[in-house]
Amino acid sequence: MLNNEYYTQDQHGPYEFYALGDFQLESGETLKNTQLAYAVHGKLNKAKDNAILFTIMFSGTSKNMEHYIGTGKALDPDKYCIILPNQLGGGLSTSPHNIDSSHAMAGFPYVSIGDDVVAQHKLLIEHFGIQELQLVTGWSMGAQQTYEWAIRYPDMVKRAAPIAGTAKCTPHDSLYVDVFSEALRSDPVWNSGDYSDPHACELGLKRLANVFALMGLCTEFYKQEQWKRIGFDSLQEMLAGFWEAWFKPMDPNSLLTQAKKWQQGDSSKHAGGDLVKALNSIKAKTYVIAFEKDMFVPVEDCKYEKQHVPNSELKIISSLMGHFAMLGLLDEDFKRMDSLFRSLLSCDVS
Amino acid sequence: MLNNEYYTQDQHGPYEFYALGDFQLESGETLKNTQLAYAVHGKLNKAKDNAILFTIMFSGTSKNMEHYIGTGKALDPDKYCIILPNQLGGGLSTSPHNIDSSHAMAGFPYVSIGDDVVAQHKLLIEHFGIQELQLVTGWSMGAQQTYEWAIRYPDMVKRAAPIAGTAKCTPHDSLYVDVFSEALRSDPVWNSGDYSDPHACELGLKRLANVFALMGLCTEFYKQEQWKRIGFDSLQEMLAGFWEAWFKPMDPNSLLTQAKKWQQGDSSKHAGGDLVKALNSIKAKTYVIAFEKDMFVPVEDCKYEKQHVPNSELKIISSLMGHFAMLGLLDEDFKRMDSLFRSLLSCDVS
Repeated sequence: MLNNEYYTQDQHGPYEFYALGDFQLESGETLKNTQLAYAVHGKLNKAKDNAILFTIMFSGTSKNMEHYIGTGKALDPDKYCIILPNQLGGGLSTSPHNIDSSHAMAGFPYVSIGDDVVAQHKLLIEHFGIQELQLVTGWSMGAQQTYEWAIRYPDMVKRAAPIAGTAKCTPHDSLYVDVFSEALRSDPVWNSGDYSDPHACELGLKRLANVFALMGLCTEFYKQEQWKRIGFDSLQEMLAGFWEAWFKPMDPNSLLTQAKKWQQGDSSKHAGGDLVKALNSIKAKTYVIAFEKDMFVPVEDCKYEKQHVPNSELKIISSLMGHFAMLGLLDEDFKRMDSLFRSLLSCDVS
Repeated sequence: MLNNEYYTQDQHGPYEFYALGDFQLESGETLKNTQLAYAVHGKLNKAKDNAILFTIMFSGTSKNMEHYIGTGKALDPDKYCIILPNQLGGGLSTSPHNIDSSHAMAGFPYVSIGDDVVAQHKLLIEHFGIQELQLVTGWSMGAQQTYEWAIRYPDMVKRAAPIAGTAKCTPHDSLYVDVFSEALRSDPVWNSGDYSDPHACELGLKRLANVFALMGLCTEFYKQEQWKRIGFDSLQEMLAGFWEAWFKPMDPNSLLTQAKKWQQGDSSKHAGGDLVKALNSIKAKTYVIAFEKDMFVPVEDCKYEKQHVPNSELKIISSLMGHFAMLGLLDEDFKRMDSLFRSLLSCDVS
């Protein structure tokens, strides 16, 4: 185990653990003594029917989505019990850096979107006794989990808001994952994933950060020097202070575990590979949310899901922050997203 | 000197050389015994007023644009004398791999877009005796050269067609150049540019190729599996057979020389840094040509140039090939471009 001070309660808490025991993965492998880290905001009511599940994106933790939760916001903990489960392999849950045995480091097994969703389902059913969810949402890889939830458990999910993500990884996104994964692996001390220090692969992490900078926003964001709006004086300052600062503390094997999960994400597996059939089976009232300038999950891709999910609407958010509008760094992005959550939660689904 | 069989008459000929002698660069440095490689199609008439200059993009040679030239095409060698000058540092002209002295390999000096244009101007004036050009055109870095020509020599350029490029490198394109340059330099045998074999940096070239694959087309091209239209059975086949096959024979130092030239490209230097003033000074009838799905020179960027070049029109070509529509791999892309050349050449500029 490599102790990494980034994945701690200090940085991302408070969060709790649910012990899944020896957890069988879709691949057939067993992940021993699996811990699912999750955060909870608000209280479950007696009927246990006020729960919202908010799943987590690539490289993120439950902490990173907390700005959507608060009294007076759409995701109001005074009204809802909002549960944010961290990805398996994502750093807080059982992950390459915090497991012993042959599964440590580069030996960590392939974990799928489906594995996350099954683990989350166990948490909700076994630990909380929840039988219905008012809303499942998530951004990017969180959208992949959201689709998987709505397809696997159609009667449990009343409303769904997949945000800037698809039910099946697109070929272009697959290529994107290859490019940034290879940027990370290019680090001189990568050593096939058996690096000696959690922060050794600084150059690889920087290269990965720059690929995200290239694709994460949009050309106009940069042309209009919008970095000034989020507190940076220059592009170089933003690269260092935002993108590199985001990725540099993280564990490379954890990032690659998530990356492979993203790339292999395919909810059509539950309909014999027929994606249309899988999407058709969704019962949830669904807002397919897309960001207008998103360079790796463009609106065009999201239209496909909208077309095939029966009770769905496409909601497009205009923002020069592109894919990263979800971070809510620009106040108007946060407000627009908050109002979509509010609108969806007010939809009658009885 | 590292002999590289890619940069030869066999591969890219026929082309000729114009000896520029000791060529003074904008930086103040002198490039000794500089050779400018160029191809010519058609004959200069007696009045020497039927010339077209077709400049070359990043990683390209004069050979790569020849499909636009032919009897019956807009760029008809029976009517026009079409001159295609290869970039300084681009592989055929004086370049890092074919020069001795301290300028060899990683020691090759910084060459600017302006240096190329001055060298080309010498070729046209001193060698051909050309005083006016019916058209200057070029794609991507060729568009940078086209703007530079129209700004530096406004009375000489009758018509201009900058294609999918800008007069000043945008911040997002600068980031793009950083990402693919770093991908190349990440090669384990890169050795600060002093690699021992011209094809040693195979992994770096592959990584660069994948970054181009990511940004060069568009998401829908991949989603619709359009690779089938250009003769590939799968994405993996296209990555290997198209993108890697394109870049792998090339010289890394040459690519980085061009990359830096691209990144530093700024035609506003001729107007004291005032880009609007520089663009305003263009006298040529200009078609600003953009590709609708271009991910690194989006239409939005080209609109800026259109707005400030006095006698200009914006022409948008719809193609899922994005930035690489210019290669004309899809017949409709070639036809649309050919017809724009024809239309522009028929514009009265007297």
